[in-house]
Amino acid sequence: MSTTEQKLQELKTRLLEIGDLNHINALLGWDQSTYMPAGGAEARGRQSALMAQMAQEKFIDKEIGNLLDDLQSYEESLPYDSDDASLIRVTRREYERALKIPPEFIGELNEHAAAAYQAWAEARPANDFAKVRPGLEKTLDLSRKLAEYFPGYEHIADPLIDFADVGMKASSVRTLFASLRDQLVPIVRAITSQPAADNSVLHKHYPEADQLAFGAEVVKQLGYDFNRGRIDKTHHPFMTKFSLGDVRITTRVKEDDFGDCLFSNMHEAGHAMYEQGIDMSYEGMPLGGGTSAGVHESQSRLWENIVGRSHGFWEYMYPSLQAKFPEQLNGVSLSAFYAAINKVEKSLIRTDADEVTYNLHVMLRFDFEVQLLEGSLSIRDLPEAWHERFEHDFGIVPPNDSDGVLQDVHWYAGVIGGSFQGYTLGNILSAQFYNSALKAHPEITNEIAQGKFSTLHGWLRENIYRHGSKFTAPEIVERASGSALTIEPYIDYLKTKYGALYTL
Amino acid sequence: MSTTEQKLQELKTRLLEIGDLNHINALLGWDQSTYMPAGGAEARGRQSALMAQMAQEKFIDKEIGNLLDDLQSYEESLPYDSDDASLIRVTRREYERALKIPPEFIGELNEHAAAAYQAWAEARPANDFAKVRPGLEKTLDLSRKLAEYFPGYEHIADPLIDFADVGMKASSVRTLFASLRDQLVPIVRAITSQPAADNSVLHKHYPEADQLAFGAEVVKQLGYDFNRGRIDKTHHPFMTKFSLGDVRITTRVKEDDFGDCLFSNMHEAGHAMYEQGIDMSYEGMPLGGGTSAGVHESQSRLWENIVGRSHGFWEYMYPSLQAKFPEQLNGVSLSAFYAAINKVEKSLIRTDADEVTYNLHVMLRFDFEVQLLEGSLSIRDLPEAWHERFEHDFGIVPPNDSDGVLQDVHWYAGVIGGSFQGYTLGNILSAQFYNSALKAHPEITNEIAQGKFSTLHGWLRENIYRHGSKFTAPEIVERASGSALTIEPYIDYLKTKYGALYTL
Repeated sequence: MSTTEQKLQELKTRLLEIGDLNHINALLGWDQSTYMPAGGAEARGRQSALMAQMAQEKFIDKEIGNLLDDLQSYEESLPYDSDDASLIRVTRREYERALKIPPEFIGELNEHAAAAYQAWAEARPANDFAKVRPGLEKTLDLSRKLAEYFPGYEHIADPLIDFADVGMKASSVRTLFASLRDQLVPIVRAITSQPAADNSVLHKHYPEADQLAFGAEVVKQLGYDFNRGRIDKTHHPFMTKFSLGDVRITTRVKEDDFGDCLFSNMHEAGHAMYEQGIDMSYEGMPLGGGTSAGVHESQSRLWENIVGRSHGFWEYMYPSLQAKFPEQLNGVSLSAFYAAINKVEKSLIRTDADEVTYNLHVMLRFDFEVQLLEGSLSIRDLPEAWHERFEHDFGIVPPNDSDGVLQDVHWYAGVIGGSFQGYTLGNILSAQFYNSALKAHPEITNEIAQGKFSTLHGWLRENIYRHGSKFTAPEIVERASGSALTIEPYIDYLKTKYGALYTL
Repeated sequence: MSTTEQKLQELKTRLLEIGDLNHINALLGWDQSTYMPAGGAEARGRQSALMAQMAQEKFIDKEIGNLLDDLQSYEESLPYDSDDASLIRVTRREYERALKIPPEFIGELNEHAAAAYQAWAEARPANDFAKVRPGLEKTLDLSRKLAEYFPGYEHIADPLIDFADVGMKASSVRTLFASLRDQLVPIVRAITSQPAADNSVLHKHYPEADQLAFGAEVVKQLGYDFNRGRIDKTHHPFMTKFSLGDVRITTRVKEDDFGDCLFSNMHEAGHAMYEQGIDMSYEGMPLGGGTSAGVHESQSRLWENIVGRSHGFWEYMYPSLQAKFPEQLNGVSLSAFYAAINKVEKSLIRTDADEVTYNLHVMLRFDFEVQLLEGSLSIRDLPEAWHERFEHDFGIVPPNDSDGVLQDVHWYAGVIGGSFQGYTLGNILSAQFYNSALKAHPEITNEIAQGKFSTLHGWLRENIYRHGSKFTAPEIVERASGSALTIEPYIDYLKTKYGALYTL
């Protein structure tokens, strides 16, 4: 073995151990959200902090830096997109970032997040913002401290945004969101001034066990691999990964709201198929995960909405659904069901929102993150600010905090900043990627209507999934779609789809 | 803070981190047995090995030895049974043992165990001993290697027996088992020469969900704390712990065998109540777990058998059971049910065996462990040896390996040696401890018949549970019962109970 091969092997051995520590930490989090009894919370927070701190300590070991230096000439001898060059390049980028964050801080952040999550899990059903407020104030302090480890920013939110969506910052997201808002608001106004679609069919009684069975069958057909995954119930659905061979999703069920479980499943399965599609040789390496929040969300939204709420999909799937729920759906036409699952309305909950109003929920949260970080809004004033802004944007006042500021887990299980812009970037990119897939394979539209998803899945795997984090988000967008991020395909998609359902 | 206090605190901080690594590893194992998809196995083995190796490396750090040396005079200034003296004493005993085992070996053993478990989980339903044989041969090699790290033994099994049941060795267990066997065999012969009890009532159809609900309710009443625990399904029931606040049990359900789920629950809840009863200040320390395999098993067997299969317990519980399963049990008298759950018969499966024949199953396994380790039996010949010995002891030939050598997980998820003697030590001690509790609180018998378990639970917590590993098994037996381990109470218990059911 040459010295270079030895050094590369040594780097990979170290990175795999770090990857395993992070994956173990993910399991601690999954268990806490799914099955852990309340009595386990204190130790779990400590254990999670330990895993995070050990991973961080091992990653910032100066020997990693030495290996990266020693491997630089090898990297430069290789094509940019070779696996080895990419591993060295991406590892160096993350290493240089990690060096700026003290390991004790990571430990503190993780321990705090576990405690804050537990408080939120109790506070949300109790509509008790006071219970989470001290924790949230500490979260904000820690979030600012984290950003301050990366001086030289234009806005204090920028480092946190860049962690999730490399290349973006507060000002660029604001500009993008403003142009999207200009297009969206007239569409929302046009639709909500018309009679609302009737979605009462979704609010009949759908027994939990049947919803879970149907939801699992659907994602299996889309291509989610249960040999390398499973579905459990949590307060807030999510995708998590313990290795490329174990990529799990979670869901929730409301017996009087048919859409919640099924569309959560398709959403999380979209995230999971991305991870399951990554080249197995990237296992445990910095290349072995999705490349950005926005690109990740593009896949959840593509499968949930562009596929899962399309007319073609339900041409195929609706007979099975009627067979599963005959009492609820016999006599309900496909077009009535299709209108119901695509009902546009001003509503309280982001994750339940339709495709058209969804981005307004995201923009509200993004703006609050920016304001909290810069200090123009305090945690104390947040519930009231939420109510005011919500009334301004949606014309309705949230009746409580449970369905307001307490609805999303993000701020209660991580940092404030960079958590939300990816959702709208994902919506935008979902249409851009789907357009590119259609250009390559125009037959995809018909295939979906026949229950065949493998051509689409194959194109996504080939052009996006398998690369993991080899390319940055701007690179993968350019490679897969032939252009930079653009809102046109998304606006076209919304106008075409909703123009057929409403008068725009 | 004095230097001594600082050093003690430093020791505790290090020990807590090591405890957390071991508890995290336990969670990896729990997840593998309960919910992990097959695709996760390879990474899980690696991750488990990593946790075990890190824990071992941190424990044998020479700074631990230095701290123990520095704290020796403090220890000597304290009473033997003080918490601090006990922590230092028990930590030193474990430290000196751990120093003899290389960390790489622990990693190898754990990684192998994860792979061997996966093979067993597939091989048992397929009755495929060949599938596990190579793994089992490696397990035997590793088991011998482990014993050889402790030279000076009389028999190669001795170090492995001592790990589980300190103070015992192959020769002392053999002597004890021989005297027990002399008493048991005539009882077994007397009972099995009489007409067998009719337990067909247990083999009606008992739906899984109802069994799970009833089984959970029973252990809750016994005193298992669900705020610090939960029950999940696995191939082989077990108890595991991720902190003193999170002590879980697992169960299995056979719809045509009512006893399997319920008595497994009571058994594992006995283990779990022991752990849940440990002084919370021992969290993560070497004191914070049960003291030996035998004492642990005494608690599972006490709750499963001495309480759970007693006439008094069912005087209280049988009406609830009949209400839960009216179709199956209406018209079945309490005495018929009591006879059914205490049917003595020569049967294939250790965990299903009645109290009287159970120890013969254990003795068979103990003898095979000793023979495998000393080399007088090979893995290749094990299935055949199992069949022969089983026919000799029970008069029946196992129809396959699934219900023979493949039935117990132990050899497929750990080492060969020291795994089984604790079950019979536990049976013996269960009667000895229960007798002592009755002497202190003669009302316990009547209380159980009224569904009150708190006096018994309280006596056990006060005299056994809260101490964790502060005292060795011989010490705790002496303290709680006033004498050394003795088979008389157990033989008396069997003769009294079964003398009322059969002619002895």
